[in-house]
Amino acid sequence: MRASRPAVHPVEAPPPAPVAAAQAQAQGEGDGVAHPRGVRMKDPPGAPGTPAGLGLRLAQFFFAAAALAVMASTNDFPSVSAFSYLVAAAILQCLWSLSLAFVDIYALLVKRSLRNARAVCIFTVGDGITGTLTLGAACASAGITVLIGNDLNICAENHCASFETATAMAFISWFALAPSCILNFWSMASR
Amino acid sequence: MRASRPAVHPVEAPPPAPVAAAQAQAQGEGDGVAHPRGVRMKDPPGAPGTPAGLGLRLAQFFFAAAALAVMASTNDFPSVSAFSYLVAAAILQCLWSLSLAFVDIYALLVKRSLRNARAVCIFTVGDGITGTLTLGAACASAGITVLIGNDLNICAENHCASFETATAMAFISWFALAPSCILNFWSMASR
Repeated sequence: MRASRPAVHPVEAPPPAPVAAAQAQAQGEGDGVAHPRGVRMKDPPGAPGTPAGLGLRLAQFFFAAAALAVMASTNDFPSVSAFSYLVAAAILQCLWSLSLAFVDIYALLVKRSLRNARAVCIFTVGDGITGTLTLGAACASAGITVLIGNDLNICAENHCASFETATAMAFISWFALAPSCILNFWSMASR
Repeated sequence: MRASRPAVHPVEAPPPAPVAAAQAQAQGEGDGVAHPRGVRMKDPPGAPGTPAGLGLRLAQFFFAAAALAVMASTNDFPSVSAFSYLVAAAILQCLWSLSLAFVDIYALLVKRSLRNARAVCIFTVGDGITGTLTLGAACASAGITVLIGNDLNICAENHCASFETATAMAFISWFALAPSCILNFWSMASR
């Protein structure tokens, strides 16, 4: 009967609050409701230095690497400029996303925010450049793939399946890059 | 001799000052130095509702229309999907840029700022979508053009010059669209 008295709850309630706040801070997902005024807002999910941001980087790396591997596995890709360009863009995308994934892992391990003005600016410009190159390479490859497969119907003598898979992977990599770029640009503009 | 007396100038000088300020406000190019604190910053050059913004829109429209005209002047563009897609994307780009050019002209005529939150959001999303489509179409056409001209060397039986011109015009249209999109996104994020 003592457990149902209202006095029990105020005593038990306070301890979990700081732990939850610390966890929320560590994960960068706090909504800022429990924080005092003047404390900086937490990074939105997907920003650099958050688990979602790391997930986006790893997705970009994985799909760019898949596009690179599938395209490089065909023996005749160097005969088409657009496919060679896709390989080059995928290599650049892999290097960029892997570098930023390591930066994110470091930021998560030492529990530091990456909302430094210069870092966000570099991330935004790099995301913009690699994103434009990846989208361009994916579109150029898609144009060639559609030309071979639908317009000329010469899939029998080409690796249409591989070309299509590599193009699709490059597009997915770009779709994973777009949120990172938009979030970085937003956080650069809104400071 | 009366005209050279210094007393003449103080009488004539004051009127031009408010006129110049009004002109600077109307053109959206005031640097805000002469304004009291708390007054909203003027639109940056290139934002919607400024002469530079109108120039960017007209450049987008002109180059997209040029790409459309040059590509449509070849009789065999429908045989290649990427070229048909370029025509479709150029039509969309023309319509979008022309609409926003009219909005800019209206805003300039009635001397109103277009920094409305909903308007900027619509401009940004529309710019992003048309920009992605135009870049994709330009890259796909470039891939095909390079395939025809450099990889297969069959320019003799194709309109390589027209395809190259249309692709270049589409790229220039995208280059004129990028600043509009970035400025709109910046002003949306920084409010």
